[in-house]
Amino acid sequence: MASLHTVAIDVMSGDNGLEAAIPAAIVFLKKYDDTALILVGDETSINQELTKHKQSTSERLIIQHASEVVNMDDSPKLALRFKKDSSMRVAINLVKEGRANAAVSAGNTGALMATGRFVLRTLKGIDRPAICAAIPAASGHTYMLDLGANIDSTSEHLYQFAIMGSELVHAIDGVDKPRVGLLNIGSEDMKGNEQVKAAHDRLQNGAFNYIGFAEGNDIFHGDVDVIVCDGFVGNVALKTTEGLAKMLSEEIKAGYTKSLYAKFAALISLPVIRSFRKRFDHRQYNGASFLGLKGIVVKSHGGADDVAFANAIGIARKAVIEKVPDRIEAQLDKHLTK
Amino acid sequence: MASLHTVAIDVMSGDNGLEAAIPAAIVFLKKYDDTALILVGDETSINQELTKHKQSTSERLIIQHASEVVNMDDSPKLALRFKKDSSMRVAINLVKEGRANAAVSAGNTGALMATGRFVLRTLKGIDRPAICAAIPAASGHTYMLDLGANIDSTSEHLYQFAIMGSELVHAIDGVDKPRVGLLNIGSEDMKGNEQVKAAHDRLQNGAFNYIGFAEGNDIFHGDVDVIVCDGFVGNVALKTTEGLAKMLSEEIKAGYTKSLYAKFAALISLPVIRSFRKRFDHRQYNGASFLGLKGIVVKSHGGADDVAFANAIGIARKAVIEKVPDRIEAQLDKHLTK
Repeated sequence: MASLHTVAIDVMSGDNGLEAAIPAAIVFLKKYDDTALILVGDETSINQELTKHKQSTSERLIIQHASEVVNMDDSPKLALRFKKDSSMRVAINLVKEGRANAAVSAGNTGALMATGRFVLRTLKGIDRPAICAAIPAASGHTYMLDLGANIDSTSEHLYQFAIMGSELVHAIDGVDKPRVGLLNIGSEDMKGNEQVKAAHDRLQNGAFNYIGFAEGNDIFHGDVDVIVCDGFVGNVALKTTEGLAKMLSEEIKAGYTKSLYAKFAALISLPVIRSFRKRFDHRQYNGASFLGLKGIVVKSHGGADDVAFANAIGIARKAVIEKVPDRIEAQLDKHLTK
Repeated sequence: MASLHTVAIDVMSGDNGLEAAIPAAIVFLKKYDDTALILVGDETSINQELTKHKQSTSERLIIQHASEVVNMDDSPKLALRFKKDSSMRVAINLVKEGRANAAVSAGNTGALMATGRFVLRTLKGIDRPAICAAIPAASGHTYMLDLGANIDSTSEHLYQFAIMGSELVHAIDGVDKPRVGLLNIGSEDMKGNEQVKAAHDRLQNGAFNYIGFAEGNDIFHGDVDVIVCDGFVGNVALKTTEGLAKMLSEEIKAGYTKSLYAKFAALISLPVIRSFRKRFDHRQYNGASFLGLKGIVVKSHGGADDVAFANAIGIARKAVIEKVPDRIEAQLDKHLTK
């Protein structure tokens, strides 16, 4: 079994900590027999949680003790300096040491990115790592980056994001020449768009399949595979999407319980609603890739449940199999020597 | 009838031109008897459209001929220099000349803003006018500005947006002390947020009710009345909202027509769906205010139908009655002399 992939999981972080991470690990192991998991965190607590699920450790389920936890509101600085034995840090150390091929954490984004950068370092040619995730679209889904690692991205940064996003989608989804779009606002001739225009010119000279500007609504059309943008803008778009989807689903639910008649309608509609929910289940989109690091780090949503968390582990596994950092590095080499 | 308010309507612009604007005007006039409308555009075409609707001109329905139309893809520069008799320009001229109290247009945003700025000028203390509109939230709605007039807004600009947005919501919705939030991304300690932090400090010294940072999902929570942000970010958030809402409504529709059973479920669900649609009908949110100008200009969505267009005229009427520019000017005076 020398060919096992290994993913280190920070099981202590996120809103749900062990309660989401342990069941996720168990479900994951049943689904994939080519991958081993290292559960990183407080050994006693992990053992308790495993016992609760009648699960014992094995060759494919290993515990690595870590005495500290990075809290959701810890600053990256604090996490880096004072929590050197945190579950997050130890998981990433395992990647650095070659004992794991990837790390997954639901911990705070800032601390995770800072730790990933500090421990693993960035690939040659990458100024800033970026966060990339898929958002469900009318047909399939659209990847977007950066989702919040950097703000004030220059055209050079956006160019690097395009290389990384294109390579990720090629690797993960098997899309041959992913269509890359640059996020812009509609009224192109309005004041101040020079910055985006510079990026537009830069992207046209890339060896990826750049198809031009995309607007906010294009995220959902499915006719672009990767949308590249500044991290502030990307994060706002992501949060806006999450907020609106949540509100609408709650309003629909409220609408269907308002009266006895509405409840009856809901009952009749159940198959339709279920199929809709399945299609747009945000949990199946959980798992954001930190791109540009010398190693694989996947961020699970802070509020992820076990199903969502297992999906994030699945994304890490796919990135390991497809050797995403190596592929990005090869592309960067090509671009840099051009 | 000296006390009639007067709104000039550019009836030629937008995707639907006269076909949306004329029925909108007719519906509007039936609803409000305190307002007169000046239809600005090609006189012959307007008369033909009025005849089609069996409507004649009156003291409250006046035609003002304009020989040109600004196209959706005309640059602001082109519109300003070469289309001096456009329906858009003439409508705004009427405001400048005091013959109308407000102008409404579904024409291209860039040209409309440039024309508004050039003809009406900005209020003292305003560097950049901003676009402000309401977005439906879980309870009521949330105003957001800037939605795309400016990019690279400084903290001083955001401060001005806060004054204007706060005053608009106070005037239009009668909210006593509108809660003003500053759009930010969650991970506050991540690199590069100094710009937003500077704006945060600046906003805390305002005479408005600043409640701190808001994230993308807060748009839909209804616990902030005005969200202030850079125009690029605001425009992306708005387009993202529109795109997702459109996709979800189409997917729901598709889900409910997939099989005979689904169609039956849709029939049963009709009252629930109708009430939901009514609540989130984007048409009732149509009408973006251009704030910071010495006059009232309201932008109707390019694709607005008659119902949506009539709503935009209604927003202009309300702004006239509440003297929004005067109120903003008074607030600016207060802030500037502080």
